[in-house]
Amino acid sequence: MAKKIAYLGPPGTFTEEAALKYDPAAELVPFYSIPAVAAAVDTGLAEEGVVAIENSLEGSVTDTLDLLIHESKLRIRCELTLPIEHHLLVKPGTEAVNAEVIFSHPQALAQCRRFLERCFPKAQMAAALSTTAAVEQMMSSSIPAAAIGTERAAELYGAQVVARNIQDRSPNVTRFVVLAPDDHPPTGRDKTSLCFSFDEDRPGLLFGVLKEIADCNINLAKVESRPTKESLGRYIFLVDLVGHRQDPTISQVLEKIRARTSMVKVFGSYPRCDVAP
Amino acid sequence: MAKKIAYLGPPGTFTEEAALKYDPAAELVPFYSIPAVAAAVDTGLAEEGVVAIENSLEGSVTDTLDLLIHESKLRIRCELTLPIEHHLLVKPGTEAVNAEVIFSHPQALAQCRRFLERCFPKAQMAAALSTTAAVEQMMSSSIPAAAIGTERAAELYGAQVVARNIQDRSPNVTRFVVLAPDDHPPTGRDKTSLCFSFDEDRPGLLFGVLKEIADCNINLAKVESRPTKESLGRYIFLVDLVGHRQDPTISQVLEKIRARTSMVKVFGSYPRCDVAP
Repeated sequence: MAKKIAYLGPPGTFTEEAALKYDPAAELVPFYSIPAVAAAVDTGLAEEGVVAIENSLEGSVTDTLDLLIHESKLRIRCELTLPIEHHLLVKPGTEAVNAEVIFSHPQALAQCRRFLERCFPKAQMAAALSTTAAVEQMMSSSIPAAAIGTERAAELYGAQVVARNIQDRSPNVTRFVVLAPDDHPPTGRDKTSLCFSFDEDRPGLLFGVLKEIADCNINLAKVESRPTKESLGRYIFLVDLVGHRQDPTISQVLEKIRARTSMVKVFGSYPRCDVAP
Repeated sequence: MAKKIAYLGPPGTFTEEAALKYDPAAELVPFYSIPAVAAAVDTGLAEEGVVAIENSLEGSVTDTLDLLIHESKLRIRCELTLPIEHHLLVKPGTEAVNAEVIFSHPQALAQCRRFLERCFPKAQMAAALSTTAAVEQMMSSSIPAAAIGTERAAELYGAQVVARNIQDRSPNVTRFVVLAPDDHPPTGRDKTSLCFSFDEDRPGLLFGVLKEIADCNINLAKVESRPTKESLGRYIFLVDLVGHRQDPTISQVLEKIRARTSMVKVFGSYPRCDVAP
Protein backbone atom coordinates (compact mmCIF):
# COMPACT_ATOMS: atom_id res chain seq x y z
CA MET A 1 0.00 0.00 0.00
CA ALA A 2 1.31 3.45 -0.87
CA LYS A 3 2.56 5.63 1.98
CA LYS A 4 0.12 8.41 2.92
CA ILE A 5 1.67 11.89 2.98
CA ALA A 6 -0.23 14.93 4.28
CA TYR A 7 0.59 18.31 2.72
CA LEU A 8 -0.62 21.91 2.79
CA GLY A 9 -3.21 21.92 0.03
CA PRO A 10 -5.24 22.43 -2.00
CA PRO A 11 -3.77 20.48 -4.95
CA GLY A 12 -1.73 22.78 -7.16
CA THR A 13 0.36 24.38 -4.39
CA PHE A 14 4.15 24.31 -4.31
CA THR A 15 3.90 22.04 -1.27
CA GLU A 16 2.10 19.41 -3.37
CA GLU A 17 4.96 19.66 -5.87
CA ALA A 18 7.49 19.18 -3.04
CA ALA A 19 5.59 16.16 -1.69
CA LEU A 20 5.54 14.61 -5.21
CA LYS A 21 9.30 15.22 -5.51
CA TYR A 22 9.89 13.66 -2.08
CA ASP A 23 7.92 10.49 -2.82
CA PRO A 24 6.40 10.15 -6.30
CA ALA A 25 4.73 6.83 -5.30
CA ALA A 26 2.96 8.16 -2.19
CA GLU A 27 -0.72 8.85 -1.81
CA LEU A 28 -0.93 12.63 -1.19
CA VAL A 29 -3.61 13.96 1.15
CA PRO A 30 -4.25 17.73 1.20
CA PHE A 31 -4.94 19.57 4.49
CA TYR A 32 -5.86 23.20 4.81
CA SER A 33 -3.44 24.60 7.36
CA ILE A 34 0.06 23.82 8.61
CA PRO A 35 -1.28 22.74 12.06
CA ALA A 36 -3.77 20.44 10.28
CA VAL A 37 -0.92 18.72 8.39
CA ALA A 38 0.84 18.10 11.73
CA ALA A 39 -2.39 16.88 13.36
CA ALA A 40 -2.90 14.39 10.50
CA VAL A 41 0.52 12.86 11.14
CA ASP A 42 0.11 12.99 14.93
CA THR A 43 -3.12 11.01 14.77
CA GLY A 44 -2.01 8.48 12.14
CA LEU A 45 -4.23 9.82 9.34
CA ALA A 46 -0.98 10.14 7.40
CA GLU A 47 2.49 8.69 7.96
CA GLU A 48 4.41 11.84 7.10
CA GLY A 49 3.62 15.49 6.40
CA VAL A 50 5.28 18.04 4.12
CA VAL A 51 5.37 21.76 4.97
CA ALA A 52 7.44 24.74 3.79
CA ILE A 53 9.92 26.11 6.33
CA GLU A 54 11.97 28.80 4.52
CA ASN A 55 12.10 30.77 1.26
CA SER A 56 15.24 32.36 -0.18
CA LEU A 57 13.49 35.75 -0.65
CA GLU A 58 10.87 35.90 2.08
CA GLY A 59 12.68 34.10 4.90
CA SER A 60 11.19 31.69 7.39
CA VAL A 61 7.66 30.34 7.27
CA THR A 62 6.80 31.41 10.79
CA ASP A 63 3.71 29.17 11.08
CA THR A 64 5.96 26.13 10.65
CA LEU A 65 8.54 27.39 13.16
CA ASP A 66 5.85 28.19 15.73
CA LEU A 67 4.27 24.76 15.23
CA LEU A 68 7.61 23.04 15.88
CA ILE A 69 8.30 25.27 18.92
CA HIS A 70 4.92 25.35 20.63
CA GLU A 71 2.52 22.74 19.34
CA SER A 72 3.90 19.57 17.82
CA LYS A 73 5.96 16.64 19.05
CA LEU A 74 6.73 15.56 15.49
CA ARG A 75 10.32 15.42 14.31
CA ILE A 76 11.91 16.68 11.12
CA ARG A 77 12.81 13.55 9.14
CA CYS A 78 13.98 15.08 5.89
CA GLU A 79 14.44 18.37 4.07
CA LEU A 80 14.20 19.19 0.37
CA THR A 81 14.27 22.30 -1.80
CA LEU A 82 12.22 23.37 -4.78
CA PRO A 83 12.66 26.30 -7.19
CA ILE A 84 9.61 28.58 -7.04
CA GLU A 85 8.37 29.76 -10.42
CA HIS A 86 5.46 32.16 -10.51
CA HIS A 87 3.39 32.45 -13.67
CA LEU A 88 0.66 34.87 -14.70
CA LEU A 89 -2.60 33.06 -15.46
CA VAL A 90 -5.82 34.22 -17.10
CA LYS A 91 -9.10 32.66 -18.26
CA PRO A 92 -8.54 31.10 -21.70
CA GLY A 93 -9.42 33.57 -24.43
CA THR A 94 -9.02 36.71 -22.27
CA GLU A 95 -6.24 39.29 -22.49
CA ALA A 96 -3.93 39.80 -19.50
CA VAL A 97 -3.51 43.51 -20.33
CA ASN A 98 -7.17 44.14 -19.55
CA ALA A 99 -6.91 42.71 -16.02
CA GLU A 100 -8.35 45.11 -13.46
CA VAL A 101 -7.62 42.86 -10.52
CA ILE A 102 -4.77 40.44 -9.82
CA PHE A 103 -5.34 37.63 -7.33
CA SER A 104 -2.65 35.84 -5.36
CA HIS A 105 -1.29 34.92 -1.97
CA PRO A 106 0.30 38.04 -0.41
CA GLN A 107 3.76 36.38 -0.53
CA ALA A 108 3.44 35.70 -4.27
CA LEU A 109 2.26 39.29 -4.87
CA ALA A 110 5.31 40.50 -2.90
CA GLN A 111 7.70 38.29 -4.87
CA CYS A 112 6.40 39.65 -8.19
CA ARG A 113 6.12 43.29 -7.10
CA ARG A 114 8.41 44.76 -9.73
CA PHE A 115 6.69 42.93 -12.61
CA LEU A 116 3.26 43.98 -11.32
CA GLU A 117 4.25 47.64 -10.84
CA ARG A 118 5.67 47.83 -14.36
CA CYS A 119 3.09 45.84 -16.30
CA PHE A 120 -0.06 46.43 -14.24
CA PRO A 121 0.37 49.85 -12.60
CA LYS A 122 -3.39 50.40 -12.36
CA ALA A 123 -4.60 46.92 -11.45
CA GLN A 124 -5.87 46.23 -7.97
CA MET A 125 -4.10 43.52 -5.95
CA ALA A 126 -6.42 41.05 -4.18
CA ALA A 127 -5.16 38.75 -1.42
CA ALA A 128 -6.06 35.04 -1.51
CA LEU A 129 -5.35 32.34 1.08
CA SER A 130 -3.17 30.32 -1.37
CA THR A 131 -1.97 30.64 -4.96
CA THR A 132 -4.46 27.90 -5.85
CA ALA A 133 -7.36 29.75 -4.21
CA ALA A 134 -6.24 32.78 -6.24
CA VAL A 135 -6.55 30.84 -9.51
CA GLU A 136 -10.00 29.61 -8.47
CA GLN A 137 -11.11 33.18 -7.63
CA MET A 138 -9.71 34.49 -10.92
CA MET A 139 -11.55 31.82 -12.93
CA SER A 140 -14.88 32.80 -11.32
CA SER A 141 -14.28 36.58 -11.30
CA SER A 142 -16.91 38.68 -13.06
CA ILE A 143 -14.44 41.53 -13.76
CA PRO A 144 -11.34 41.11 -15.98
CA ALA A 145 -8.75 39.42 -13.81
CA ALA A 146 -5.42 37.58 -13.71
CA ALA A 147 -3.84 35.40 -11.04
CA ILE A 148 -0.31 34.51 -10.01
CA GLY A 149 -0.07 30.73 -9.68
CA THR A 150 1.68 27.55 -10.65
CA GLU A 151 1.77 25.54 -13.84
CA ARG A 152 -0.11 22.78 -12.04
CA ALA A 153 -2.86 25.12 -10.77
CA ALA A 154 -3.30 26.26 -14.40
CA GLU A 155 -3.76 22.62 -15.45
CA LEU A 156 -6.13 21.80 -12.57
CA TYR A 157 -8.39 24.83 -13.10
CA GLY A 158 -8.14 25.14 -16.87
CA ALA A 159 -6.37 28.52 -16.76
CA GLN A 160 -3.96 29.78 -19.42
CA VAL A 161 -0.32 30.69 -18.64
CA VAL A 162 0.40 34.04 -20.33
CA ALA A 163 3.72 35.04 -18.69
CA ARG A 164 6.35 32.79 -17.12
CA ASN A 165 8.78 33.31 -14.26
CA ILE A 166 7.50 36.75 -13.34
CA GLN A 167 9.18 36.81 -9.91
CA ASP A 168 11.52 39.77 -9.23
CA ARG A 169 14.59 37.75 -8.44
CA SER A 170 16.06 34.40 -9.11
CA PRO A 171 16.89 32.08 -7.57
CA ASN A 172 13.65 31.85 -5.66
CA VAL A 173 13.94 28.59 -3.75
CA THR A 174 11.80 27.18 -0.95
CA ARG A 175 13.00 24.65 1.60
CA PHE A 176 10.44 22.09 2.79
CA VAL A 177 10.63 19.68 5.72
CA VAL A 178 9.05 16.26 6.11
CA LEU A 179 7.48 15.83 9.58
CA ALA A 180 7.15 12.34 11.07
CA PRO A 181 6.92 10.67 14.49
CA ASP A 182 10.68 9.91 14.32
CA ASP A 183 13.63 11.68 12.80
CA HIS A 184 16.21 10.10 10.45
CA PRO A 185 19.03 7.68 11.36
CA PRO A 186 22.58 9.03 10.86
CA THR A 187 23.86 9.18 7.27
CA GLY A 188 27.19 10.96 7.85
CA ARG A 189 25.91 14.15 6.21
CA ASP A 190 23.33 15.38 8.65
CA LYS A 191 21.94 18.46 10.30
CA THR A 192 20.23 18.88 13.70
CA SER A 193 17.56 21.53 14.28
CA LEU A 194 16.62 22.71 17.77
CA CYS A 195 15.31 25.66 19.75
CA PHE A 196 16.09 26.98 23.22
CA SER A 197 15.15 29.82 25.53
CA PHE A 198 16.08 31.39 28.84
CA ASP A 199 13.91 32.20 31.83
CA GLU A 200 15.78 35.43 32.47
CA ASP A 201 16.90 38.33 30.29
CA ARG A 202 20.58 38.91 30.99
CA PRO A 203 23.36 40.11 28.63
CA GLY A 204 25.50 37.27 27.35
CA LEU A 205 23.07 34.35 27.71
CA LEU A 206 22.73 33.70 23.97
CA PHE A 207 26.42 34.38 23.54
CA GLY A 208 27.21 31.69 26.15
CA VAL A 209 25.31 29.06 24.15
CA LEU A 210 26.91 30.07 20.85
CA LYS A 211 30.32 29.90 22.55
CA GLU A 212 29.70 26.26 23.54
CA ILE A 213 28.90 25.50 19.90
CA ALA A 214 31.95 27.38 18.57
CA ASP A 215 34.25 25.79 21.20
CA CYS A 216 33.20 22.33 19.96
CA ASN A 217 34.02 23.42 16.40
CA ILE A 218 30.45 22.71 15.28
CA ASN A 219 29.25 24.61 12.23
CA LEU A 220 26.16 26.69 12.94
CA ALA A 221 24.11 26.53 9.74
CA LYS A 222 21.39 28.95 10.91
CA VAL A 223 20.38 31.19 13.83
CA GLU A 224 16.93 32.63 14.05
CA SER A 225 14.72 34.16 16.74
CA ARG A 226 10.99 33.90 17.32
CA PRO A 227 8.87 35.65 19.96
CA THR A 228 8.14 33.62 23.12
CA LYS A 229 4.55 34.93 22.79
CA GLU A 230 4.80 35.85 26.47
CA SER A 231 6.10 39.40 26.12
CA LEU A 232 7.61 41.68 23.51
CA GLY A 233 11.41 41.56 23.51
CA ARG A 234 11.73 37.97 24.84
CA TYR A 235 12.79 35.39 22.26
CA ILE A 236 13.15 31.69 21.54
CA PHE A 237 16.28 30.98 19.49
CA LEU A 238 16.38 28.37 16.72
CA VAL A 239 19.67 26.94 15.49
CA ASP A 240 20.71 24.34 12.92
CA LEU A 241 23.91 22.46 13.78
CA VAL A 242 25.88 20.49 11.20
CA GLY A 243 25.93 16.88 12.46
CA HIS A 244 23.56 14.21 13.86
CA ARG A 245 22.29 14.29 17.45
CA GLN A 246 23.76 10.78 17.88
CA ASP A 247 27.27 12.03 16.92
CA PRO A 248 29.33 12.34 20.13
CA THR A 249 30.22 16.04 19.54
CA ILE A 250 26.60 17.02 18.90
CA SER A 251 25.26 15.01 21.82
CA GLN A 252 27.86 16.61 24.13
CA VAL A 253 27.04 20.12 22.97
CA LEU A 254 23.32 19.44 23.43
CA GLU A 255 24.06 18.59 27.09
CA LYS A 256 26.00 21.84 27.48
CA ILE A 257 23.15 23.82 25.90
CA ARG A 258 20.66 22.16 28.30
CA ALA A 259 22.80 23.30 31.23
CA ARG A 260 22.74 26.94 30.06
CA THR A 261 19.08 27.31 29.08
CA SER A 262 15.65 26.89 30.65
CA MET A 263 14.13 25.00 27.69
CA VAL A 264 15.60 22.96 24.82
CA LYS A 265 13.55 21.18 22.15
CA VAL A 266 15.31 19.12 19.48
CA PHE A 267 13.26 19.08 16.27
CA GLY A 268 15.32 16.21 14.85
CA SER A 269 18.39 15.16 12.88
CA TYR A 270 18.09 14.53 9.15
CA PRO A 271 20.19 14.36 5.97
CA ARG A 272 21.35 17.76 4.72
CA CYS A 273 19.99 18.76 1.39
CA ASP A 274 22.64 20.44 -0.73
CA VAL A 275 21.54 23.82 -1.91
CA ALA A 276 22.50 25.00 -5.36
CA PRO A 277 23.78 28.61 -5.15
CA MET B 1 2.28 74.26 10.50
CA ALA B 2 1.68 70.74 11.71
CA LYS B 3 4.37 68.15 11.00
CA LYS B 4 3.42 65.76 8.19
CA ILE B 5 3.71 62.08 9.13
CA ALA B 6 3.30 59.29 6.57
CA TYR B 7 1.86 55.98 7.78
CA LEU B 8 0.71 52.65 6.42
CA GLY B 9 -2.96 53.30 5.71
CA PRO B 10 -5.80 53.32 5.11
CA PRO B 11 -7.20 55.27 8.09
CA GLY B 12 -8.35 52.88 10.81
CA THR B 13 -5.22 50.70 10.89
CA PHE B 14 -3.14 50.12 14.01
CA THR B 15 -0.36 52.12 12.37
CA GLU B 16 -2.63 55.19 12.24
CA GLU B 17 -3.26 54.68 15.96
CA ALA B 18 0.51 54.48 16.59
CA ALA B 19 1.15 57.65 14.54
CA LEU B 20 -1.56 59.49 16.54
CA LYS B 21 0.03 58.30 19.79
CA TYR B 22 3.48 59.43 18.57
CA ASP B 23 2.35 62.94 17.62
CA PRO B 24 -1.30 63.83 18.25
CA ALA B 25 -0.79 67.25 16.63
CA ALA B 26 0.67 65.99 13.35
CA GLU B 27 -1.06 65.88 9.99
CA LEU B 28 -1.27 62.16 9.14
CA VAL B 29 -0.93 61.09 5.52
CA PRO B 30 -1.85 57.48 4.61
CA PHE B 31 0.24 55.50 2.09
CA TYR B 32 -0.57 52.05 0.81
CA SER B 33 2.60 50.04 1.33
CA ILE B 34 5.60 50.11 3.64
CA PRO B 35 7.98 51.09 0.76
CA ALA B 36 5.57 53.91 -0.15
CA VAL B 37 5.75 55.32 3.41
CA ALA B 38 9.56 55.31 3.13
CA ALA B 39 9.45 56.91 -0.33
CA ALA B 40 7.19 59.68 1.01
CA VAL B 41 9.77 60.57 3.67
CA ASP B 42 12.71 60.15 1.27
CA THR B 43 11.21 62.65 -1.16
CA GLY B 44 10.01 65.19 1.41
CA LEU B 45 6.27 64.52 0.95
CA ALA B 46 6.31 63.83 4.70
CA GLU B 47 8.83 64.64 7.42
CA GLU B 48 8.59 61.29 9.21
CA GLY B 49 6.99 57.91 8.59
CA VAL B 50 5.53 55.33 10.98
CA VAL B 51 5.67 51.58 10.23
CA ALA B 52 5.28 48.42 12.33
CA ILE B 53 8.48 46.44 12.92
CA GLU B 54 7.59 43.62 15.36
CA ASN B 55 4.62 41.95 17.05
CA SER B 56 4.79 39.99 20.32
CA LEU B 57 2.94 37.00 18.80
CA GLU B 58 3.83 37.04 15.12
CA GLY B 59 7.43 38.26 15.28
CA SER B 60 9.12 40.66 12.90
CA VAL B 61 7.39 42.57 10.13
CA THR B 62 9.72 41.35 7.42
CA ASP B 63 8.71 44.03 4.87
CA THR B 64 10.03 46.68 7.27
CA LEU B 65 13.27 44.79 7.96
CA ASP B 66 13.88 44.22 4.23
CA LEU B 67 13.21 47.89 3.50
CA LEU B 68 15.79 48.97 6.10
CA ILE B 69 18.31 46.40 4.83
CA HIS B 70 17.95 46.71 1.08
CA GLU B 71 16.06 49.79 0.00
CA SER B 72 16.03 52.82 2.25
CA LYS B 73 18.62 55.24 3.59
CA LEU B 74 16.21 56.50 6.25
CA ARG B 75 17.12 56.15 9.91
CA ILE B 76 15.09 54.94 12.85
CA ARG B 77 14.41 58.04 14.96
CA CYS B 78 12.04 56.63 17.56
CA GLU B 79 10.21 53.49 18.62
CA LEU B 80 6.87 53.05 20.34
CA THR B 81 4.59 50.18 21.30
CA LEU B 82 0.84 49.75 21.11
CA PRO B 83 -1.44 47.01 22.51
CA ILE B 84 -3.26 45.25 19.65
CA GLU B 85 -6.93 44.62 20.34
CA HIS B 86 -8.91 42.75 17.72
CA HIS B 87 -12.69 43.09 17.67
CA LEU B 88 -15.38 41.26 15.72
CA LEU B 89 -17.42 43.67 13.58
CA VAL B 90 -20.68 43.22 11.68
CA LYS B 91 -23.09 45.40 9.72
CA PRO B 92 -25.42 47.14 12.19
CA GLY B 93 -28.58 45.10 12.71
CA THR B 94 -27.09 41.76 11.58
CA GLU B 95 -26.23 38.79 13.79
CA ALA B 96 -22.61 37.63 14.02
CA VAL B 97 -23.68 34.00 14.48
CA ASN B 98 -25.06 33.92 10.94
CA ALA B 99 -21.74 34.97 9.38
CA GLU B 100 -20.74 32.64 6.56
CA VAL B 101 -17.52 34.46 5.77
CA ILE B 102 -15.06 36.31 8.02
CA PHE B 103 -12.80 38.93 6.46
CA SER B 104 -9.46 40.07 7.80
CA HIS B 105 -5.75 40.43 7.20
CA PRO B 106 -4.13 36.96 7.39
CA GLN B 107 -2.16 38.02 10.50
CA ALA B 108 -5.33 39.07 12.33
CA LEU B 109 -7.04 35.79 11.31
CA ALA B 110 -4.00 33.92 12.69
CA GLN B 111 -4.04 35.88 15.95
CA CYS B 112 -7.73 35.04 16.55
CA ARG B 113 -7.55 31.42 15.36
CA ARG B 114 -8.79 29.82 18.58
CA PHE B 115 -11.80 32.16 18.87
CA LEU B 116 -12.69 31.59 15.21
CA GLU B 117 -12.37 27.80 15.42
CA ARG B 118 -14.60 27.68 18.49
CA CYS B 119 -17.25 30.22 17.59
CA PHE B 120 -17.26 30.02 13.78
CA PRO B 121 -16.24 26.44 12.92
CA LYS B 122 -18.12 26.51 9.61
CA ALA B 123 -17.41 30.06 8.42
CA GLN B 124 -15.04 30.63 5.53
CA MET B 125 -11.97 32.81 6.18
CA ALA B 126 -11.29 35.47 3.55
CA ALA B 127 -7.96 37.28 3.31
CA ALA B 128 -7.88 41.08 2.95
CA LEU B 129 -4.91 43.39 2.40
CA SER B 130 -5.49 45.20 5.75
CA THR B 131 -7.91 45.01 8.67
CA THR B 132 -9.50 48.19 7.33
CA ALA B 133 -9.96 46.72 3.85
CA ALA B 134 -11.58 43.73 5.59
CA VAL B 135 -14.14 45.98 7.29
CA GLU B 136 -14.89 47.69 3.97
CA GLN B 137 -15.36 44.31 2.24
CA MET B 138 -17.59 43.05 5.06
CA MET B 139 -19.80 46.17 4.86
CA SER B 140 -20.36 45.63 1.13
CA SER B 141 -20.64 41.82 1.26
CA SER B 142 -23.84 40.37 -0.17
CA ILE B 143 -23.60 37.22 1.97
CA PRO B 144 -23.77 37.27 5.80
CA ALA B 145 -20.31 38.32 6.96
CA ALA B 146 -18.18 39.53 9.85
CA ALA B 147 -14.74 41.17 9.94
CA ILE B 148 -11.90 41.39 12.41
CA GLY B 149 -10.89 45.01 12.78
CA THR B 150 -10.26 47.94 15.09
CA GLU B 151 -12.55 50.18 17.09
CA ARG B 152 -11.57 53.03 14.79
CA ALA B 153 -12.34 51.09 11.61
CA ALA B 154 -15.79 50.36 13.09
CA GLU B 155 -16.30 54.11 13.61
CA LEU B 156 -15.01 55.04 10.15
CA TYR B 157 -17.12 52.51 8.26
CA GLY B 158 -20.21 52.49 10.49
CA ALA B 159 -19.75 48.88 11.58
CA GLN B 160 -20.91 47.46 14.92
CA VAL B 161 -18.50 45.88 17.43
CA VAL B 162 -20.10 42.61 18.64
CA ALA B 163 -17.15 40.95 20.43
CA ARG B 164 -14.09 42.58 21.98
CA ASN B 165 -10.50 41.39 22.42
CA ILE B 166 -10.97 38.15 20.52
CA GLN B 167 -7.23 37.50 20.08
CA ASP B 168 -5.93 34.14 21.38
CA ARG B 169 -3.34 35.56 23.72
CA SER B 170 -2.59 38.66 25.63
CA PRO B 171 -0.48 40.65 25.71
CA ASN B 172 -0.54 41.25 21.98
CA VAL B 173 1.74 44.24 21.50
CA THR B 174 3.20 45.73 18.31
CA ARG B 175 6.38 47.78 18.18
CA PHE B 176 6.45 50.61 15.64
CA VAL B 177 9.39 52.69 14.43
CA VAL B 178 9.47 56.27 13.20
CA LEU B 179 11.61 56.64 10.06
CA ALA B 180 13.26 59.99 9.29
CA PRO B 181 16.29 61.36 7.40
CA ASP B 182 18.24 61.49 10.71
CA ASP B 183 18.21 59.41 13.85
CA HIS B 184 17.84 60.74 17.41
CA PRO B 185 20.47 62.59 19.50
CA PRO B 186 21.67 60.70 22.61
CA THR B 187 19.32 60.67 25.62
CA GLY B 188 21.26 58.34 27.93
CA ARG B 189 18.69 55.54 27.47
CA ASP B 190 19.19 54.55 23.86
CA LYS B 191 19.33 51.59 21.51
CA THR B 192 21.21 51.18 18.22
CA SER B 193 19.87 48.97 15.42
CA LEU B 194 22.12 47.64 12.64
CA CYS B 195 22.60 44.77 10.22
CA PHE B 196 25.70 43.05 8.87
CA SER B 197 26.66 40.20 6.57
CA PHE B 198 29.68 38.19 5.43
CA ASP B 199 30.91 37.50 1.92
CA GLU B 200 31.89 33.96 2.84
CA ASP B 201 30.16 31.14 4.68
CA ARG B 202 32.57 29.89 7.34
CA PRO B 203 31.86 28.48 10.83
CA GLY B 204 32.39 31.02 13.59
CA LEU B 205 31.88 34.26 11.61
CA LEU B 206 28.69 35.29 13.40
CA PHE B 207 30.16 34.04 16.66
CA GLY B 208 33.19 36.33 16.14
CA VAL B 209 30.95 39.40 15.89
CA LEU B 210 28.85 38.44 18.91
CA LYS B 211 32.09 37.90 20.86
CA GLU B 212 33.19 41.49 20.14
CA ILE B 213 29.84 42.69 21.49
CA ALA B 214 30.02 40.45 24.60
CA ASP B 215 33.68 41.41 25.24
CA CYS B 216 32.66 45.09 25.35
CA ASN B 217 29.93 44.20 27.86
CA ILE B 218 27.25 45.58 25.57
CA ASN B 219 23.74 44.18 26.03
CA LEU B 220 22.39 42.59 22.87
CA ALA B 221 18.67 43.38 22.91
CA LYS B 222 17.84 41.35 19.78
CA VAL B 223 19.39 39.05 17.15
CA GLU B 224 17.53 38.19 14.00
CA SER B 225 18.38 36.81 10.58
CA ARG B 226 16.95 37.62 7.15
CA PRO B 227 17.77 36.02 3.80
CA THR B 228 20.37 37.84 1.69
CA LYS B 229 18.00 37.18 -1.26
CA GLU B 230 21.05 35.88 -3.14
CA SER B 231 20.84 32.22 -2.17
CA LEU B 232 19.09 29.95 0.30
CA GLY B 233 21.10 29.46 3.49
CA ARG B 234 22.99 32.83 3.37
CA TYR B 235 21.80 35.41 5.87
CA ILE B 236 21.98 39.05 6.89
CA PHE B 237 22.01 39.43 10.67
CA LEU B 238 20.18 42.21 12.50
CA VAL B 239 21.10 43.20 16.04
CA ASP B 240 19.92 45.81 18.54
CA LEU B 241 22.62 47.05 20.92
CA VAL B 242 21.81 48.88 24.15
CA GLY B 243 23.49 52.31 23.84
CA HIS B 244 23.85 55.20 21.35
CA ARG B 245 26.18 55.02 18.33
CA GLN B 246 27.89 58.17 19.65
CA ASP B 247 28.72 56.44 22.97
CA PRO B 248 32.44 55.52 22.94
CA THR B 249 31.80 51.78 23.65
CA ILE B 250 29.21 51.47 20.89
CA SER B 251 31.28 53.42 18.38
CA GLN B 252 34.31 51.20 19.16
CA VAL B 253 32.34 47.99 18.79
CA LEU B 254 30.89 49.24 15.49
CA GLU B 255 34.47 49.63 14.20
CA LYS B 256 35.27 46.07 15.32
CA ILE B 257 32.14 44.73 13.61
CA ARG B 258 33.13 46.56 10.39
CA ALA B 259 36.52 44.82 10.49
CA ARG B 260 34.90 41.37 10.73
CA THR B 261 32.10 41.69 8.17
CA SER B 262 31.70 42.53 4.49
CA MET B 263 28.74 44.91 5.00
CA VAL B 264 27.44 46.94 7.95
CA LYS B 265 24.44 49.26 7.85
CA VAL B 266 23.45 51.23 10.95
CA PHE B 267 19.70 51.90 10.97
CA GLY B 268 20.06 54.49 13.73
CA SER B 269 20.18 55.20 17.46
CA TYR B 270 17.01 56.20 19.28
CA PRO B 271 15.47 56.31 22.78
CA ARG B 272 14.47 52.87 24.11
CA CYS B 273 10.82 52.43 24.69
CA ASP B 274 10.15 50.52 27.89
CA VAL B 275 7.99 47.51 27.29
CA ALA B 276 5.43 46.54 29.87
CA PRO B 277 5.71 42.79 30.56
